[in-house]
Amino acid sequence: MFDPVTKLQEFIRCPSVSTDSKFADGMRAAQEFMAGLFAGMGLSVEVVPTKRNPIILASRGGDTSWPHVIIYGHYDVQPPDPLELWRTPPFEPTIKDGRIYGRGAADNKGPLLAIVAAVGRLLEKSPALPLRITFLVEGEEEMGSPSFPDFLEKYRERLKSADFVFLCDTALPNDRQVVVTCGLRGLTALEIQVSGPKSDLHSGLYGGALLNPLQALAEICASLHTPEGRVNVPGFYDEVRDVQPWEREELKKLGMSEKDFAAFLGIDAFHSGPGFTPFEAIRFQPTLEFNGIGGGYQGEGTKTVIPSRAVAKITCRLVPDQKPEKIRRRVEEAIRARIPKGVRVEIVAGHNADPYVVVPPGRSNTPAGQSPVLAQAFRAADEAVAGVWGRPPIYLREGGSVPIIADIKRVTGLDSLMFGLFLPEDNLHAPNEGFSLGVMQKGIETVERILASLAAGRGKR
Amino acid sequence: MFDPVTKLQEFIRCPSVSTDSKFADGMRAAQEFMAGLFAGMGLSVEVVPTKRNPIILASRGGDTSWPHVIIYGHYDVQPPDPLELWRTPPFEPTIKDGRIYGRGAADNKGPLLAIVAAVGRLLEKSPALPLRITFLVEGEEEMGSPSFPDFLEKYRERLKSADFVFLCDTALPNDRQVVVTCGLRGLTALEIQVSGPKSDLHSGLYGGALLNPLQALAEICASLHTPEGRVNVPGFYDEVRDVQPWEREELKKLGMSEKDFAAFLGIDAFHSGPGFTPFEAIRFQPTLEFNGIGGGYQGEGTKTVIPSRAVAKITCRLVPDQKPEKIRRRVEEAIRARIPKGVRVEIVAGHNADPYVVVPPGRSNTPAGQSPVLAQAFRAADEAVAGVWGRPPIYLREGGSVPIIADIKRVTGLDSLMFGLFLPEDNLHAPNEGFSLGVMQKGIETVERILASLAAGRGKR
Repeated sequence: MFDPVTKLQEFIRCPSVSTDSKFADGMRAAQEFMAGLFAGMGLSVEVVPTKRNPIILASRGGDTSWPHVIIYGHYDVQPPDPLELWRTPPFEPTIKDGRIYGRGAADNKGPLLAIVAAVGRLLEKSPALPLRITFLVEGEEEMGSPSFPDFLEKYRERLKSADFVFLCDTALPNDRQVVVTCGLRGLTALEIQVSGPKSDLHSGLYGGALLNPLQALAEICASLHTPEGRVNVPGFYDEVRDVQPWEREELKKLGMSEKDFAAFLGIDAFHSGPGFTPFEAIRFQPTLEFNGIGGGYQGEGTKTVIPSRAVAKITCRLVPDQKPEKIRRRVEEAIRARIPKGVRVEIVAGHNADPYVVVPPGRSNTPAGQSPVLAQAFRAADEAVAGVWGRPPIYLREGGSVPIIADIKRVTGLDSLMFGLFLPEDNLHAPNEGFSLGVMQKGIETVERILASLAAGRGKR
Repeated sequence: MFDPVTKLQEFIRCPSVSTDSKFADGMRAAQEFMAGLFAGMGLSVEVVPTKRNPIILASRGGDTSWPHVIIYGHYDVQPPDPLELWRTPPFEPTIKDGRIYGRGAADNKGPLLAIVAAVGRLLEKSPALPLRITFLVEGEEEMGSPSFPDFLEKYRERLKSADFVFLCDTALPNDRQVVVTCGLRGLTALEIQVSGPKSDLHSGLYGGALLNPLQALAEICASLHTPEGRVNVPGFYDEVRDVQPWEREELKKLGMSEKDFAAFLGIDAFHSGPGFTPFEAIRFQPTLEFNGIGGGYQGEGTKTVIPSRAVAKITCRLVPDQKPEKIRRRVEEAIRARIPKGVRVEIVAGHNADPYVVVPPGRSNTPAGQSPVLAQAFRAADEAVAGVWGRPPIYLREGGSVPIIADIKRVTGLDSLMFGLFLPEDNLHAPNEGFSLGVMQKGIETVERILASLAAGRGKR
């Protein structure tokens, strides 16, 4: 069996930034790395072309009475900017104090290799294991998985033969408590482009005559929240599903104090809106967040310019049962109603993702018709986590989005078991991303037990 | 006498970019060119060293009863970037259709040589002309004249013996109408730095719990203007001097329609605040302008981040009798009073410049104690412009800042006669800078008449 840490170093060295075309070589290197790894494990590998980055399928067939699990991951990573804040080069993996640093270490290269390693160990011990496995590893997760829906439609029948989807692309609150994620927020992205004068103007010779596009943009952006922290867009909250009492109870088991959380974030006050703790707001409430605003001179010193253009990038995180297109339309309408005279505004639509929720077995409102293999997997996870980590997992919705989870549910009907492996200090999407090697080892052990238990239980259903 | 166009070509060939040390040779070439030109005219030349680029003094003494004029100019130019947008090489002067193209052609080499040529012609005709002249040509104007205040203090007594300052470093609205600039706006610069969480955060995993620094910055910036377009800072307008009726009347003579001005700027509506036309607002009202705002991801596509920091660069243009330090303090106080909980704000002070105004003689509120020689120079300019251009000049304040004019007034008490020679199409500070040779010829003729009239009138005072 391969050494997971060595392989992770090799994987991080592939600069697989999907959103920026100048990293095309890195994307190719990551594809070849994954395909090679799977082939070395004796799996049958297919590289499925898409309009952008291919999807890698690696499968192990078997008797149709065997349980069939789809294991999802992604080989692409976020851009490494701002580069100057990295303590070590983002694509040169560095191990220090039991952690490995590099872009993608936690999102999603480390956790993905933990599952791959678990499967590798299991197949080495039990080559005849009665379990069908299909790895599905995509290269567009960090750009919103644009090719995934097409792929899903094309492979629908084959994927439908599986029982559920398993993935490690969610978070752990700390290295002692495992969380099984049973909900994800959705997302809708848009960009506001404000144009004023036809070129940049001298702020002395013309300042005072016209509306500065930066001022117009600031005023539009400022109008999008109430002082209490609610999104100030008519109808924004209309379809938000009520939080269940068990969800609030489960969340209390997290055991983190607001004080510790504020210290971790480095802030002196929360801003979570009326009726929700910060922990609840992240999981149960939608947001409208500015991811970037820019215009005019941003270098050293002063440049006395009235810029011709200004831009704001926005993403809204959505919760069940909000629909991305509907929410984006409402945000657009609110912005259009607030455009001041003297500037022009274009709104460019970005990607969408539906929110997702799966209710673990035994909860008051578990929906009828849930897959018995999934229910068994939830129970197996409960036991395996208790065995490896010393306490059972807690079941929480998470604030992040894994858009394809809702897509898979919609197209194939399959639910997902999401077992988190990255920690708050792992700096996802930020400089100095890292991953705990201790968590990786425990993750491998846990996944191995879950899959072994599924295979062993195939007769009990 | 030298041929002014040939000399201007020679002058443009010296790449005298002051802000970039790799142009040191070009700076030296321009210094030697000016010193040689002055020496050839029989003037006594001093090269006054400063911490950066020397100031060239070239003088012609005489009887202390003769009028004494200081003629200001600068031999440095803006950087030529972006080079790829130039149609001809920036430091290879090119003449086409009655215009000369090259960096510095209009700012300030062409207008400066127009005055030098006028003086040359005058002295050739009347070697015993009863007029004292001191040329003061600096090499740091395009970098904010950092050495100028020190120089002023050291040469205060000598400069004070002059009657007024004369310069051609302001604008003409078109090639038919001369403007005498009798006011400049001042300036105060500051930067708002907003910090939130200690590092960039994933907007899914944490969004909803905390205040986004970009949102805080947008809210602070949006609060700084009223919807009508006034600056929303307590006390901001307290010291603004009332506009005189003659100033509004004079401005109407500009003869540009709002429709044409809007088309020139490429906007569909003005935003000049209540009680002021756009032409008036630029000249008579102070501003608070955003020169740059930035934070978070500004590249292609989407990055789902809550940025740790966000920055806005602000300059306020000031009018008499606002004081830069006082206004900056008020803006800072207003911002500090509006910092929302959950972010920290630092405000960094930039540079200051006092506003300046000189009232031409015969206007209702001409201040007592104005130099009689300056009054005579204004009358001489009136006659000379009418004679050469076919119509008298108009007297306007301008929206831009020439900080040294207010500095000279403060240190030496001297006022300035500012006679503009560059046109809107001359592309100052931009690619394809050019200068009209027709305007240059008329400028030489006008300046010669003004100085001759001053010398002739010395007995009449």
